[in-house]
Amino acid sequence: MSEAVAATGGVARAADAPAREVPAPPDPVLRDWINGYWSDFLDDLTDWLRIPSVSADPARAADVRRSAEWLADHLRGIGFPTAEVWDCPGGPEAGLPAVFAEWPSADPGAPTVLVYGHHDVQPADAATDPWDTDPFEPVRRHGRLYARGAADDKGQVFLHSLGVRVHLAATGRTAPAVNLKLLIEGEEESGSPHFADLVREHAERLACDVVIVSDTGMWSEDTPTVCTGMRGLAGFQVDLYGPGQDIHSGSFGGAVPNPATEAARLVAALHDEDRRVTLPGFYDGVVPLDETERELFARLPFDEERWLATAHSTAALGESGHTTLERIWARPTAEVNGIWAGYTGEGSKTIVPASAHVKLSFRLVAGQRPELLEESLRDWVNGRLPAGIRAEVVAHGYTRPCLTPLDHPALASLRRAMGRAFGREILLTREGGSGPAADLRDVLGAPVLFMGISVPSDGWHSVNEKVELDLLRRGVEASAYLWADLAEHWTSREGR
Amino acid sequence: MSEAVAATGGVARAADAPAREVPAPPDPVLRDWINGYWSDFLDDLTDWLRIPSVSADPARAADVRRSAEWLADHLRGIGFPTAEVWDCPGGPEAGLPAVFAEWPSADPGAPTVLVYGHHDVQPADAATDPWDTDPFEPVRRHGRLYARGAADDKGQVFLHSLGVRVHLAATGRTAPAVNLKLLIEGEEESGSPHFADLVREHAERLACDVVIVSDTGMWSEDTPTVCTGMRGLAGFQVDLYGPGQDIHSGSFGGAVPNPATEAARLVAALHDEDRRVTLPGFYDGVVPLDETERELFARLPFDEERWLATAHSTAALGESGHTTLERIWARPTAEVNGIWAGYTGEGSKTIVPASAHVKLSFRLVAGQRPELLEESLRDWVNGRLPAGIRAEVVAHGYTRPCLTPLDHPALASLRRAMGRAFGREILLTREGGSGPAADLRDVLGAPVLFMGISVPSDGWHSVNEKVELDLLRRGVEASAYLWADLAEHWTSREGR
Repeated sequence: MSEAVAATGGVARAADAPAREVPAPPDPVLRDWINGYWSDFLDDLTDWLRIPSVSADPARAADVRRSAEWLADHLRGIGFPTAEVWDCPGGPEAGLPAVFAEWPSADPGAPTVLVYGHHDVQPADAATDPWDTDPFEPVRRHGRLYARGAADDKGQVFLHSLGVRVHLAATGRTAPAVNLKLLIEGEEESGSPHFADLVREHAERLACDVVIVSDTGMWSEDTPTVCTGMRGLAGFQVDLYGPGQDIHSGSFGGAVPNPATEAARLVAALHDEDRRVTLPGFYDGVVPLDETERELFARLPFDEERWLATAHSTAALGESGHTTLERIWARPTAEVNGIWAGYTGEGSKTIVPASAHVKLSFRLVAGQRPELLEESLRDWVNGRLPAGIRAEVVAHGYTRPCLTPLDHPALASLRRAMGRAFGREILLTREGGSGPAADLRDVLGAPVLFMGISVPSDGWHSVNEKVELDLLRRGVEASAYLWADLAEHWTSREGR
Repeated sequence: MSEAVAATGGVARAADAPAREVPAPPDPVLRDWINGYWSDFLDDLTDWLRIPSVSADPARAADVRRSAEWLADHLRGIGFPTAEVWDCPGGPEAGLPAVFAEWPSADPGAPTVLVYGHHDVQPADAATDPWDTDPFEPVRRHGRLYARGAADDKGQVFLHSLGVRVHLAATGRTAPAVNLKLLIEGEEESGSPHFADLVREHAERLACDVVIVSDTGMWSEDTPTVCTGMRGLAGFQVDLYGPGQDIHSGSFGGAVPNPATEAARLVAALHDEDRRVTLPGFYDGVVPLDETERELFARLPFDEERWLATAHSTAALGESGHTTLERIWARPTAEVNGIWAGYTGEGSKTIVPASAHVKLSFRLVAGQRPELLEESLRDWVNGRLPAGIRAEVVAHGYTRPCLTPLDHPALASLRRAMGRAFGREILLTREGGSGPAADLRDVLGAPVLFMGISVPSDGWHSVNEKVELDLLRRGVEASAYLWADLAEHWTSREGR
């Protein structure tokens, strides 16, 4: 056994494994500018976080609008020539407003970047949830800023407002090195019901070379990462109907089909013994994990025991031949989110239930086409049921998977900019969840990058949400480096 | 092919197939006595049916007691030397009272018969259920008597009160030919929670050679039958626990076990492709269907399409190699009565649920021991679960199966007595459901016979419950014949 093999725990490194990258040193001038702005920046963010822009609560609709107007005012105040509040298609009554802002570059051929984020927040109620402090009265403590929206997503949106200012100050520019556009949604925490329509309606003004999604996270402060993909999602409800009403299991049981049994047989048949999904064609087109990405995943300091603790689980289980990280990031899955049939109260009730219901969702990866899944599922269900059981399959809509092209020059820029801000090589991750990023990609025809300046402990959707102030500062720095790096290494003509 | 084979549709009759029996002619004297008593009998039954003895409704406890006292008074009035109201073990506050009555024979060596029935009834509310008339204001119409309890079970209990009177009148006796005991329960419609204890407490006074259960039904008025068995029942809840709380299916799904999936896999594995139950040892000891009984079942005018309509089902499905009647009467089954896990509301919620729950019940036939089932199920469940899923199996108690010995002389007496009353050969059936009859058999050590004077259209537990007056009259006649026939063909010494 060679020394090299021994040093990697017996796992031989491929000869063409990516070299570890050494980040460029930080720009002390730029850091000085950040320090100068820092106190005002935090005060402004605090003001914005005080606005309870809870999109799920109809009583907060005026607050969501106030939040949008606050942001547009702020962006105009720091120099954006354009900053507008955009109503949903259908008008102010149809949904909650987004903010669009634009700051063109003075350089011909500069690439155009669209930053996506959202200004609405999850519900939070100090009276009923165990927050240590009021979620809408931001508090700075131990190097953190606690407030609903501090990490998801106002903090991550706001870092770009300081990022562009220090980018200008440090480079002596009056306009950014890239054509900078911001689209800050107001309904993300409510499922983005009008987002695709909004993007289609404004597709010309949103035209760009690359989308930077600022609404994800990174591995940890010690291991900064860039996410290269989110899985897609397709949800279904399968309803099985047997007897016209619940019937006596003594008089009829064992002689007519039971829809609860048939529902269980369907769910059980959805995975084989290797826990692979059995739907015909399910894996067709799945883009396999790139060797580079697989190698970068393997370098993450993944501790399965700790991960299981965050999953509130005591054992891992999934598709054979893949690691846990591969299973949640790069492999498609089928999951039962709910099942119900018959009697569910105390004690027993001896019936054959009239119906059974299953909620299924599929996570999808690049190469899978969610529109094909519905027909495949319907055929599979109907082909497995005995006479006497009728099925209805209802689709709950889908979100497409989204994968950043690994060879795109903007991804290299993002890794360099973040590496410089964090003083470390930026590894790659993916995100197991799903988001509306693919709508941007599909409507605008631009690749999507994920710049997540947040760590798992930030408490998204939970109590005591916070942002680490040091992380936020590095995010500002990375944002500033990014616009210069993109302009230096990539022009619109080359990129497109 | 012989003529005989052709005549039976190609199915060869076994050489020892039971000969069709010609019933004895009716006793015109006895019928005259019935006619004489008939009007008073119906008036008395009507009075009793007016008492809303709903055992499930705590507000009706006094009515259940009044019903017991009414019956005891009545039985004393017609000549029973003993008729007592028995409180539950634990006293009048612990449960609802039964009635015990006894009329010893004057003949030495006469067999002792215990008739079982119940005087409590199912709930019925004219204000909320679509009854045509008040369920507790009996109405005679078109040869039927409509009232809650008319068939289940006051009518069937009461026919014995006239049966013994006309038996005495027609035979000139002052005491019945058998030692007659009645035990009329007051909690049957509430699951007989104290019945086994009651029987054990009074086992000496209830001692008998045979039990006649008067609380089932027959095939139809045109095809009178005797039921020879009821299935047993064992109910369980299986609770599966996975993650400590519902977790995000995007972040964790596909990489940790999902308790809903595992519950479905268990339920699916409970039957094989032949729809036989796969629990190890499940079929051990199962008494196969007797050839005589199978032949008598086959002679029933069973119409599967009509049966499916009563099952509100469109197709039959069950254990391979058995007919529908065999499946529901003579074969054990496993049935899912309920299943639930995760999200069951509108739309979708992308979670891996923390737990999943299944309600299972097993119908058992003679030879199966329900006390073995719990351990078998627990072992089977635990043996099939992956690491990360924990199971709890909770037993909901059981009812033993009960099968009349087909060669018992009392069964021959019952078939002769009923055959004479109905003017037809009495075929055999069984009952797919379960009842407390096995408690009587096990505690008293006496075989149990089922004398069901009711037809499927009588509306048990449903609206517009009724009894056919002609059927009731034939039941009275059969009861009267039965005591004489039993005494003539069987003495206690022989029978025991």
